[in-house]
Amino acid sequence: MARPDELLKDLGLDIDLHHRIFDAVDRSFRKTVLAQKGRPVRMAYFDGVIHESHGGRVREIVERRAAGDKFIGTFCIYVPEELVLALGGIPVALCGGTSLSIPYAEKMLPRDICPLVKSTLGLALSNTCPFGPIEDLAVGETTCDAKKKTWDLLAKDGNFHILELPQKKGARDRELWHEEIVQFIARLEELTGRRLEPDKLAAAVRLMNRKRRALARLNDFRKEGDPPISGLDALVVMQGALIDDTVRFTERLEALNEELEERVRRGVGVSSGRAKRIMISGCPSVMGNWKLHALVESAGALIVCDETCTGSRYYENLVDEAGAGLEAQIAAVAARYLKIECSCFSPNDERVDSILRLAREHRVDGVIQYVLQYCHTYSIEAVAVAAALKEAGLPSLKIVTDYAEEDTGQLRLRVDAFLEGLGW
Amino acid sequence: MARPDELLKDLGLDIDLHHRIFDAVDRSFRKTVLAQKGRPVRMAYFDGVIHESHGGRVREIVERRAAGDKFIGTFCIYVPEELVLALGGIPVALCGGTSLSIPYAEKMLPRDICPLVKSTLGLALSNTCPFGPIEDLAVGETTCDAKKKTWDLLAKDGNFHILELPQKKGARDRELWHEEIVQFIARLEELTGRRLEPDKLAAAVRLMNRKRRALARLNDFRKEGDPPISGLDALVVMQGALIDDTVRFTERLEALNEELEERVRRGVGVSSGRAKRIMISGCPSVMGNWKLHALVESAGALIVCDETCTGSRYYENLVDEAGAGLEAQIAAVAARYLKIECSCFSPNDERVDSILRLAREHRVDGVIQYVLQYCHTYSIEAVAVAAALKEAGLPSLKIVTDYAEEDTGQLRLRVDAFLEGLGW
Repeated sequence: MARPDELLKDLGLDIDLHHRIFDAVDRSFRKTVLAQKGRPVRMAYFDGVIHESHGGRVREIVERRAAGDKFIGTFCIYVPEELVLALGGIPVALCGGTSLSIPYAEKMLPRDICPLVKSTLGLALSNTCPFGPIEDLAVGETTCDAKKKTWDLLAKDGNFHILELPQKKGARDRELWHEEIVQFIARLEELTGRRLEPDKLAAAVRLMNRKRRALARLNDFRKEGDPPISGLDALVVMQGALIDDTVRFTERLEALNEELEERVRRGVGVSSGRAKRIMISGCPSVMGNWKLHALVESAGALIVCDETCTGSRYYENLVDEAGAGLEAQIAAVAARYLKIECSCFSPNDERVDSILRLAREHRVDGVIQYVLQYCHTYSIEAVAVAAALKEAGLPSLKIVTDYAEEDTGQLRLRVDAFLEGLGW
Repeated sequence: MARPDELLKDLGLDIDLHHRIFDAVDRSFRKTVLAQKGRPVRMAYFDGVIHESHGGRVREIVERRAAGDKFIGTFCIYVPEELVLALGGIPVALCGGTSLSIPYAEKMLPRDICPLVKSTLGLALSNTCPFGPIEDLAVGETTCDAKKKTWDLLAKDGNFHILELPQKKGARDRELWHEEIVQFIARLEELTGRRLEPDKLAAAVRLMNRKRRALARLNDFRKEGDPPISGLDALVVMQGALIDDTVRFTERLEALNEELEERVRRGVGVSSGRAKRIMISGCPSVMGNWKLHALVESAGALIVCDETCTGSRYYENLVDEAGAGLEAQIAAVAARYLKIECSCFSPNDERVDSILRLAREHRVDGVIQYVLQYCHTYSIEAVAVAAALKEAGLPSLKIVTDYAEEDTGQLRLRVDAFLEGLGW
């Protein structure tokens, strides 16, 4: 990881603690992602996105803020990036994937909430997150009890906005969500001193759709019999999608996709040809968290699909570009985001259908349901998902874990046993 | 506990298991509630409500169903009882307060969700809940992740209705909640084959308001310097409020209140005069769960207020009776229920204000924040509550526990230390 000491010092961070935490993230990245053989050459850029996440990326945001643009921190893929981009803002997901910041959150929060919330808050509370000091607005949402109530505590600080996501998807819920989007636009307009203009929003929608299409294409390559990219590398790209500059990221991803197409043409794949094809379904794996993917792929299987927020939930469904006039455009943005199939919805049968569809499309041999510890919604919905998979003849394994290394041995045994059970 | 074997057998219950579970509940009731000295004479009726909850109460519901009335099971005080009553329905809260049914829920649900959800579901899944077989409709809601997703699993069965509670209290949220109430009425009308009539709704509203006033009066007696009723007995009354026939319960409560007034006049109190005055704030203690109240009062303190769903949240705020016409009446019902200050709301500052107000009114010496294990919303909101209490100069203690007996020793030590810290 880049160590721009001067920059981090200027931001008032605790440099020693920062380096201690991010040296560990760095070691984890080297031991997992960088240790893979035969990676696509153009993954180098995405490794760099991770590497520069606390370096070049921060510097670039500081420079853009100096030029008058606003930096918007998010914690969830329900926050419409189009709106931020159309107002010249810089959206970055601030989710933490390291266990080392968790003790700092546990000084305030109960221990028995999910590691993602604790890791994120821990980075802020330990003064090691370079994005905290330069954040013009943080945007939380009401997707789960732990996040909702944590935002409540943080929102007292002022530069915090909470989007209310409804819990069903009926007509009234759509209205409520649409209204939340309208209020969010008003907040962004006030913050930026700019008006949301139809042509700028149209351009931002086209850009985000282009980014989604590029991510979908990347994931289409994972449907190949011998995919040209590993699950771990696909995850690194997805993690980059949440933090990198949108235009640059999309261009580099399109370049990677060309390399992947060439690899497919030349028959260069990453599986041994015998590796079992696995889908990860459930909770996201954000930057710093390569634990499950590394574990599954080092056990000889290949992850060919992620039905997660760092997977299909982020890139499936485009915003309708046909709408004329700002109102129709905003409605199209609101409608697209409500299609995301988070387990926070009741009922959420569409998600089960999507899992079965993705399993077919990616020809998976088995599904690992990934549940971050104490995430009630994915943990309970796993019951319905497992039943649907069983009915479809697909074996599944539910893994509940946090970011710590302590359970790796036990998880390895369970994953090995699961993969063996899939036969060869 | 009454053991109407013939009745329970007719309902197809597992009698042996039922008796094993409810003998334990019975023992707990005897060891805690019945072991108290100097109780009001008229508490005998409310002891009987608990005693007959699986006996006479079930028989009476079976008889009323035979006469054409419908039995509506609920799991939360957000379900408007007025609507059920106005359509001739019988509302009963089906929440479980025993640890013995929990293993049966854990066959289906993850272990790390709250004991209330697991105990409730475990009674149904172990075939020991007499209300399950006679239920015409169960009504769940979206107040927390664990309940919301558990209802999702159960709702597949058909006779289940899910009320969407919004997560903020803005204008759109009120509209959404109002619409949910309208849809709930439609569901009840379809089920009962009856139409909601203005005069019947008005009568049901008056009845529920009368019940709330009687409960509020009971709790007013707890503001006395030497209250005429213990916290444990007040809790037993509240538990009865959730399961007993509304008219009979209200009449008996009014009679109890007369006795309490007489006690106050005669100077008959339950505190030693030196007992510290404690408020319980947070999660409910439903029938079967007397653990915390017994522990605190056996340690020499007196619980003088419950800011819980088995406390002030159930009886505070009346439905406005002034509205003319069905539409205005329904709006008044919807508005009253959205005033309940559950920790599921964001923000929820009103709840903090209510805790401070109740603490003043009941002249409490300290507050125990009661959090059922894995209840994220109360657990995280406890941070803000503790801070507000501290600022008001009120000591507080957060207790996180489930229904098991194993931690009683440890909890006793913590409660003792807390009470000692309050001075004498």
